[in-house]
Amino acid sequence: MYDLLKGLRVVEGSAFVAAPTCGLYLAQFGAEVIRFDNIGGGPDFRRWPLADNGSSLYWEGLNKAKKSVALDLGRPEGREIAQRLATAPGDAGGLFVTNFPVDGFLSYETLKALRADLICLRVMGWADGSQGMDYTINAALGLPQMTGPADDDRPVNHVLAAWDLLTGAWGAFALVSALMARQRDGQGREIRAPLSDIAAATMANMGFMAETLFAGQQRPRMGNDVYGAFGRDFTTRDGVKLMILAITPKQWSKAVEALGLSGEVAALEGELGVSFATDEGLRFAHRARLYPLFERAFAGRTAAELAPAFDAGGVTWGAYQPLEAALKDPRLYKDNPLFQAIQHPSGLTYAAPGAMGTIPQDERRPVAPAPKLGQHTDEVLSEVLQMSQAEIARLHDAGVVAGAS
Amino acid sequence: MYDLLKGLRVVEGSAFVAAPTCGLYLAQFGAEVIRFDNIGGGPDFRRWPLADNGSSLYWEGLNKAKKSVALDLGRPEGREIAQRLATAPGDAGGLFVTNFPVDGFLSYETLKALRADLICLRVMGWADGSQGMDYTINAALGLPQMTGPADDDRPVNHVLAAWDLLTGAWGAFALVSALMARQRDGQGREIRAPLSDIAAATMANMGFMAETLFAGQQRPRMGNDVYGAFGRDFTTRDGVKLMILAITPKQWSKAVEALGLSGEVAALEGELGVSFATDEGLRFAHRARLYPLFERAFAGRTAAELAPAFDAGGVTWGAYQPLEAALKDPRLYKDNPLFQAIQHPSGLTYAAPGAMGTIPQDERRPVAPAPKLGQHTDEVLSEVLQMSQAEIARLHDAGVVAGAS
Repeated sequence: MYDLLKGLRVVEGSAFVAAPTCGLYLAQFGAEVIRFDNIGGGPDFRRWPLADNGSSLYWEGLNKAKKSVALDLGRPEGREIAQRLATAPGDAGGLFVTNFPVDGFLSYETLKALRADLICLRVMGWADGSQGMDYTINAALGLPQMTGPADDDRPVNHVLAAWDLLTGAWGAFALVSALMARQRDGQGREIRAPLSDIAAATMANMGFMAETLFAGQQRPRMGNDVYGAFGRDFTTRDGVKLMILAITPKQWSKAVEALGLSGEVAALEGELGVSFATDEGLRFAHRARLYPLFERAFAGRTAAELAPAFDAGGVTWGAYQPLEAALKDPRLYKDNPLFQAIQHPSGLTYAAPGAMGTIPQDERRPVAPAPKLGQHTDEVLSEVLQMSQAEIARLHDAGVVAGAS
Repeated sequence: MYDLLKGLRVVEGSAFVAAPTCGLYLAQFGAEVIRFDNIGGGPDFRRWPLADNGSSLYWEGLNKAKKSVALDLGRPEGREIAQRLATAPGDAGGLFVTNFPVDGFLSYETLKALRADLICLRVMGWADGSQGMDYTINAALGLPQMTGPADDDRPVNHVLAAWDLLTGAWGAFALVSALMARQRDGQGREIRAPLSDIAAATMANMGFMAETLFAGQQRPRMGNDVYGAFGRDFTTRDGVKLMILAITPKQWSKAVEALGLSGEVAALEGELGVSFATDEGLRFAHRARLYPLFERAFAGRTAAELAPAFDAGGVTWGAYQPLEAALKDPRLYKDNPLFQAIQHPSGLTYAAPGAMGTIPQDERRPVAPAPKLGQHTDEVLSEVLQMSQAEIARLHDAGVVAGAS
């Protein structure tokens, strides 16, 4: 938690990963982020993984540091409260993050009538409004056919919802950018962020699209070989798989030295009339010749021998470790200052992270947990919408709003 | 291209994916982004994929809409120019994006002495400053062992550098957030964004870490099964693989209906005493019973039959298509308004994307290509550092700077 965005108020009507991570990043930089949900929880409220008591570890991970308001979004009065929240007054408000449909009761047209300078970040599936989620859009971009061992042609989906995550982070950037523009020109804006456009633009930005355009077909599947440079997993004498990578000339020379391959590599360079140090593409083009040298070098040493030699030699490498080992890794979880043990709405206490970066000049504030569903209903109706206690009580009685159970 | 950040000046000293995408997003929102590189190009200047003439399609994809300055960063005078660029005066400047080492000649301490309110976004590998790149850090977080068919235990690396991309987008958000804070408090800040922290925090945000903590081990490898809900690829009668997904109750009922499985699913629900519609976790828990029903339903129909039925029925689905098919897909590339045919520094003309989102209220400005290396050296030295023509000529003669060849 840092205070970079202190004073801002963002309203979030969302589910799943992309829009909630957008709100999470804003909240962890100090914005007041108010998430509203259907009474009983939205479609992501029971999403796996679950704690033994049925609470969603996923939901409480993605909604840290937010406030929660529970509304009956199936009824006109509940919908009107959602609209009023999204468009509540204040220079530091009028910021709305959502993945509700473009043409529903939270359409930009509808909301603009309530607040002309509203900034809305709208996460979508396909840009034309049709249904799409990370995994179906990923399937349309060739990646599952490029992923996995070359001797298997089954498509391999990613496990990490990369398009959702990228959309959430880019969306937070876009929202803050639109706020800077509004401070200059007073204009409201809707920023539509369809996963399909984020994914298509990214495949183009990284050169995949131009490559395929000129080659007539996408790059072949090649297991863990790093495309266009030297990198792959190799197996040590004791059967451990290590990933090694050499893109820069320095990374290459360090790897070759640490594995004692200088002589053999020089001989191969002589035979082929190339210099591997100066052109990472040549290492890739001739990888079928290089791999056997590295395979033998790894096979002759244990992981326990290689790890310190690689570290001492400045090699870019990494061990494959399961997540349970990552949890004991002081660099990732155990002693990572990003993480702090806090109590979560599930009732469980475990270490969770605050803002993903570190600002040495600022004090890192405590990690804040996710709210219980509806925990801030009364507070928000009173403070943001200036409702009286009598009005709030009436809404509870009518079942239009709910507090935490 | 949109003008949200018009007037800002950002200097970028970077390579590879994370820091350059951060600069790309800023540039495509109208900031003036000046990238400096070593004369002849940095370590990413010849990164694959390459055009036939040797130009990098990757480099020209990641550096669109930026200006380029070429300096000899191996010499003190070149390094001093880089420092002066990063810290050049102006309220809308003092924004620096880099992946140079934390303790080198572009350290925050060094730069702060030149401009006290500098905001620096520093992309790192491991948080302790040790070498790490997307693929080696990914290996440390268990994902390669969770990815791929359940009948194969080889680790599967991702092909899309998801941690780099997330770091770039989050970094752009952090930089603009720090600028908002500076406008309020006048303070400079360094935001350190190590891939290792971005990755560890994300694995926690999505519940992977808490799940593993309480289960004692990470979730098993399960091919393309979507964890905790219903989703997988199925094969049609004509051998086409389609991805289908049902997380929400509506997605589930639409899928069951469109495949004519209502009766069989109801019978299974009766047998098991469960309701699949109301709890996506039950669909996952009983997937071994559900899969055969879906397998038979897909195997009885061709892709050409299923596609319109799925679209008409509002099913969340997607076909696996190679990237060459995506290039013909009007939703992704061919008729996508994000893309515009422009000439690139390689000399090639092909369609490339501007900003990844759409703002219906604003006019989309033309997509701007990447610069030629050194194309803006003289302009930037003159306009940003106020150097005289004589001084610039001297730097050229001394080989400290270079223009485009």
